[in-house]
Amino acid sequence: MCPQIAQSEQIRPQSAESASRKRTKQGEQTRQLILQTAVQMASREGLESLSIGKLATELNMSKSGLFAHFKSKEDLQISTITEACNLFNEEVLYPALAVEKGVKRLWKLCKGWLRYGDRAASHGGVFFTNVASEYDGRTGPVRDVVVKTMRDWLLCMERLLQQAQETGELRKDTDVQQLAFEFNALFFGASLAFQLSQDPTTGKRMKIAVKNKLLSEAVNPKKMEALLSS
Amino acid sequence: MCPQIAQSEQIRPQSAESASRKRTKQGEQTRQLILQTAVQMASREGLESLSIGKLATELNMSKSGLFAHFKSKEDLQISTITEACNLFNEEVLYPALAVEKGVKRLWKLCKGWLRYGDRAASHGGVFFTNVASEYDGRTGPVRDVVVKTMRDWLLCMERLLQQAQETGELRKDTDVQQLAFEFNALFFGASLAFQLSQDPTTGKRMKIAVKNKLLSEAVNPKKMEALLSS
Repeated sequence: MCPQIAQSEQIRPQSAESASRKRTKQGEQTRQLILQTAVQMASREGLESLSIGKLATELNMSKSGLFAHFKSKEDLQISTITEACNLFNEEVLYPALAVEKGVKRLWKLCKGWLRYGDRAASHGGVFFTNVASEYDGRTGPVRDVVVKTMRDWLLCMERLLQQAQETGELRKDTDVQQLAFEFNALFFGASLAFQLSQDPTTGKRMKIAVKNKLLSEAVNPKKMEALLSS
Repeated sequence: MCPQIAQSEQIRPQSAESASRKRTKQGEQTRQLILQTAVQMASREGLESLSIGKLATELNMSKSGLFAHFKSKEDLQISTITEACNLFNEEVLYPALAVEKGVKRLWKLCKGWLRYGDRAASHGGVFFTNVASEYDGRTGPVRDVVVKTMRDWLLCMERLLQQAQETGELRKDTDVQQLAFEFNALFFGASLAFQLSQDPTTGKRMKIAVKNKLLSEAVNPKKMEALLSS
């Protein structure tokens, strides 16, 4: 919390302080609702076409009410990316991090990623695939945030693969950067293809692709096969 | 050629026929120029935002001049997809089809695809990646053409992989549909990631990914390795 706000709250009477906290909590909830709607809209129609006006219509709010939460369209776009990351982390990354290090964690991440892609695509589009494609030809602060988000995600994948190497499940000579690159490209590409084709075999094919790749780099393929069957 | 036009040309005097042909040729050249510009614009900014007005400004032509070539925005969009396919085929598919069937042809196609993606990305964006992402959440005739284009391309990949199986270079139990799915996803995803990251190792990593995949399905890995080193 910002120290200035904390200090000013100390001199308020108790009841006023509670009312203020309530307002802050309500404000935070409204902001959350706005951002979740923004993520859904951007997944369907793109982040660039997302405007405070459109969002106000969708939420049945006034434009001035929305301006109280976001200084500008750019602020709204960047906050929407942050919210999409939070939702992705809650659904995909954190459940994987709760599992022991190694291939088990990696496999949990991949399965979560597949479920997320499947669910998102059936709701109109995968946020990150759409945003990546939207900002690849642009410049500016929103693109910079998109680029950083994708780089962070690739580094996260690399770290999880490295852990599976440290546990002795993946071979010591496995090129984890190459593997992270391939998984990332596969997921991105399959997600894009699925949104167009709606081919119901996509999830099954992705599981086969990731399994075969991990098996080809396994120290003990039989042991890993059993693990990947879960 | 339409039989009605052919009949009406027969009754024209020789000089009028030549003038008409000249006009037709000039018209065809103008149409080509318009469509090539449209492909470049759509690769940068998307196909949906492509309008006859914007294109007229870019080409320094009148809107009515453009309307003479395309009945509507939808006609322009679909013609632009067809032109992008023609350019892709000229650059990637036909040179591969000129090579003998089997892994040589497949490898030629993959290398051409990588060069195409690399060149296109440096000019502002890969047409097919952008269009796929743009139309995944839409409905209508333009989306239908995009979906058909992608399906045809996947079938083409499958056919080339099948030929490499028929020549005895890929194993009989190789799942060519799975392999085509993976190559397609890899190329799509890597192209999308490259446009954002501009990571110069992308081409090298893609070659490694495709090579390793083909080697894992090879009847004679040593022979194939030599072939893939070219």
